[in-house]
Amino acid sequence: MAYELYYWDGLQGRGEFVRLAFEEAGVEYIDVARQEDGTGSMMKWMKSKSDAHIPFAPPFIKDGDLIVSHVANILLYLGPRLDLAPQDEALRFVANGLQLTITDFVAEVHDTHHPIATTRYYEDQKDAAKQRSADFIENRIPKFMSYFERVLENNPEGSERAVGSALSYVDLSLFQIVEGLRYAFPRGTKHLGVRYPKIIAVHDAVEKRPNIQSYLASGRRLKFNESGIFRHYPELDQDN
Amino acid sequence: MAYELYYWDGLQGRGEFVRLAFEEAGVEYIDVARQEDGTGSMMKWMKSKSDAHIPFAPPFIKDGDLIVSHVANILLYLGPRLDLAPQDEALRFVANGLQLTITDFVAEVHDTHHPIATTRYYEDQKDAAKQRSADFIENRIPKFMSYFERVLENNPEGSERAVGSALSYVDLSLFQIVEGLRYAFPRGTKHLGVRYPKIIAVHDAVEKRPNIQSYLASGRRLKFNESGIFRHYPELDQDN
Repeated sequence: MAYELYYWDGLQGRGEFVRLAFEEAGVEYIDVARQEDGTGSMMKWMKSKSDAHIPFAPPFIKDGDLIVSHVANILLYLGPRLDLAPQDEALRFVANGLQLTITDFVAEVHDTHHPIATTRYYEDQKDAAKQRSADFIENRIPKFMSYFERVLENNPEGSERAVGSALSYVDLSLFQIVEGLRYAFPRGTKHLGVRYPKIIAVHDAVEKRPNIQSYLASGRRLKFNESGIFRHYPELDQDN
Repeated sequence: MAYELYYWDGLQGRGEFVRLAFEEAGVEYIDVARQEDGTGSMMKWMKSKSDAHIPFAPPFIKDGDLIVSHVANILLYLGPRLDLAPQDEALRFVANGLQLTITDFVAEVHDTHHPIATTRYYEDQKDAAKQRSADFIENRIPKFMSYFERVLENNPEGSERAVGSALSYVDLSLFQIVEGLRYAFPRGTKHLGVRYPKIIAVHDAVEKRPNIQSYLASGRRLKFNESGIFRHYPELDQDN
């Protein structure tokens, strides 16, 4: 039975970290909300007053009867099944820790355009968004990126991978973060390649993998847009 | 060998979710940053340019050579070892999903007083903090709390536990969230008991457990204060 992925239709968002894992592994999955009536079926799980183990928010996956929610948890579950996690059990906790740092970073990306309230329009929190984005570009991108660069440098199995010696879902997520940052902040990320060469090497290597290449060229890969996590508002971008 | 916990000295913060698990289980642990030179030893791991598997931020634990970082990851690791996780493997992913929803909620609590930049003083982002806190009290507390209430209602093993039939680290974390919210927002949380009776029942049951009781009465349990995640700034509180 195919895995079912539940995530908002029309955007990459957090669901994309899961899609990249499915696509790299080449396994069958159903992107439920992109099917007819799919969003309704997703909402049914979220609003259920009787089902056990209801998710708070998408993305979540269904594998048979089991619902697994939150990107890092989904990848923790899928990792060994898709051969995208380290064999060594201790290293799986390392991978999960890295993925949770990526989770925190993604939440900060979201808050650059919604620093006050997710329920309000961007236009109604633009001033705070400008302040938060400036801090994000000046302080937070360097803090997170230099951390991941160091993680790669220190990996005893080689700087080509975030953890262990083989490709893992963490490498796929690093690819997505670079893609998203470059889309949202082209000025703020102009020097990523010079400053964080190992991260960019991971990005470039992932981009060239055959399954990822054909995914990126397919209609399944949506374009970044201003409904997603990574949004390009020129007024929030600045040189760095 | 005792577990080592690394977290900022002087505050409960995110470290408290881990402390509660150690304390309930009654296992030996060293709260490293509260030892002499402990903070320096913590920073050494975070800044290391040579060690593998460096953490981005505290809390993290060391178990022998293994470093595990991020609260949810630490609890995922410790859960089975401290008998605070479901026996069933599938339910462990459910527990992890719930803990990650708690993680997101805690990040939103933090951002009520720091909506613009963690590196800047509260006083310099007070206006944005007021707006964000109002939204937090009006929309976000109800959204998260009604979710957890529903999780308890829907638990096929009984509404006394978040997941499975036995106490888990998720229940301990729900206790801590109620404690923190009541400290930070006494006005905004006045009706928690009426609105979310099952969550409060979990809170009260955890509070009465012998090991937790003696922990709360001990010097190891720091008081909430304005260096932590849950901060009481009266100007950010409002009736709800």
